[in-house]
Amino acid sequence: MPLNNTTPPGALYLIPAPLGESGLDSIPAAAIAVLHRLEYFIVERAKTARHYIKATHPPRALQELHIVELAQNSATEDWEALLAPLRAGHDVGLLSEAGCPGIADPGAEVVKRAHLHGIQVVPLAGPSSIVLALMASGMNGQSFCFHGYLSAKRPELERDLKRLEQSALRLHQTQLFIEAPYRNGQVIETALKTLSAGTLFGIACDLTLPEQYVRRLPVSEWRETPPPDLHKRPAVFLIGS
Amino acid sequence: MPLNNTTPPGALYLIPAPLGESGLDSIPAAAIAVLHRLEYFIVERAKTARHYIKATHPPRALQELHIVELAQNSATEDWEALLAPLRAGHDVGLLSEAGCPGIADPGAEVVKRAHLHGIQVVPLAGPSSIVLALMASGMNGQSFCFHGYLSAKRPELERDLKRLEQSALRLHQTQLFIEAPYRNGQVIETALKTLSAGTLFGIACDLTLPEQYVRRLPVSEWRETPPPDLHKRPAVFLIGS
Repeated sequence: MPLNNTTPPGALYLIPAPLGESGLDSIPAAAIAVLHRLEYFIVERAKTARHYIKATHPPRALQELHIVELAQNSATEDWEALLAPLRAGHDVGLLSEAGCPGIADPGAEVVKRAHLHGIQVVPLAGPSSIVLALMASGMNGQSFCFHGYLSAKRPELERDLKRLEQSALRLHQTQLFIEAPYRNGQVIETALKTLSAGTLFGIACDLTLPEQYVRRLPVSEWRETPPPDLHKRPAVFLIGS
Repeated sequence: MPLNNTTPPGALYLIPAPLGESGLDSIPAAAIAVLHRLEYFIVERAKTARHYIKATHPPRALQELHIVELAQNSATEDWEALLAPLRAGHDVGLLSEAGCPGIADPGAEVVKRAHLHGIQVVPLAGPSSIVLALMASGMNGQSFCFHGYLSAKRPELERDLKRLEQSALRLHQTQLFIEAPYRNGQVIETALKTLSAGTLFGIACDLTLPEQYVRRLPVSEWRETPPPDLHKRPAVFLIGS
């Protein structure tokens, strides 16, 4: 695509995606309107993006859209090519697999490059499982920390959980983390063994979906009434004081 | 209100509110549907809540709604009276002044009490200025920490900013905070004096509104091209590495 230095660059719109098949009604009208106006997209996964756009009944045929997938590894990404439509004056939408682009996903690197090129960035509101979990927990929402994924192996995971518990208690700061959904059972088991009886532990699962599960209890009570089987269900975990 | 022990309790819906007059299109249909179905509300400020509900064209007259304001101080709150409609079987909506209830507002205490009474809590997606600021910054969204308000006075504020900068650099963890909008100028001035030249500083202002302002630069570049006057405009600030 030829770069035309007299054309002002387009804007990068950060468009939220539903947290599951049945979560489309969690996307605000403002985001749908932008989704329908744009022709250029940078996406985490093309198949999911097309499925989402199609479900919103777009005014344009999907084949007319320019959808580019992010490379799995940002080091191998051809950033010049990726940002070329923006520099040629087109507005571009950034879509992640689920939720808000740039949070716990590879989208932040695109936003960073946009800033470096002086491209306007427009974030649009939508579902964030981290925020929904925090709201639902009733734990401290004035001070909180999200850590992404903890260590996968047992001794390191126990050490991570202990460290988060100490921060939660010492700073009265809610600690949030996620795990690959097929390992929920292992994380919950380890947390309920490792954390102190009086510490608050929260699980928020399948947020915005009909099967949503939200519960927060002291560890001692979890030990008496364990959670249902949450295998392969996307979840956010919380530790509070 | 009489308590009937044979009635199952209602659910507490956490309903997001717009971040400003013109931000209504950032509220998803799922939240509006619940807002229109409910008759009972616990709100941070009744005037704002009525204004918001009215703007959504509710099916019911505002006078028919039971809207109770949260006490300014949770110690003086009559929790039994506040939760009575829920225990009598009514679904209740929790509304904060702006954004997501329970995050950087007094709503978390209501959610906590609901959990203690075994009441189901249902968080609904909507605009969160913290998440929007983080998305828009392109800073690390895999690990971040929100601190609410920093110290108001100069020497303590400088110490807080230095501490956040150290965490940002040491942990590659984005640090977010807010300030009373009438003190934005003072906070920005102090941050640009206190932080190191290479540290990333971000400002996200009037999010979801037409006058939205988003910018992130190394401190050295901010010093050369300072931000416009953001006096009294709600803002989120970020420090990154």
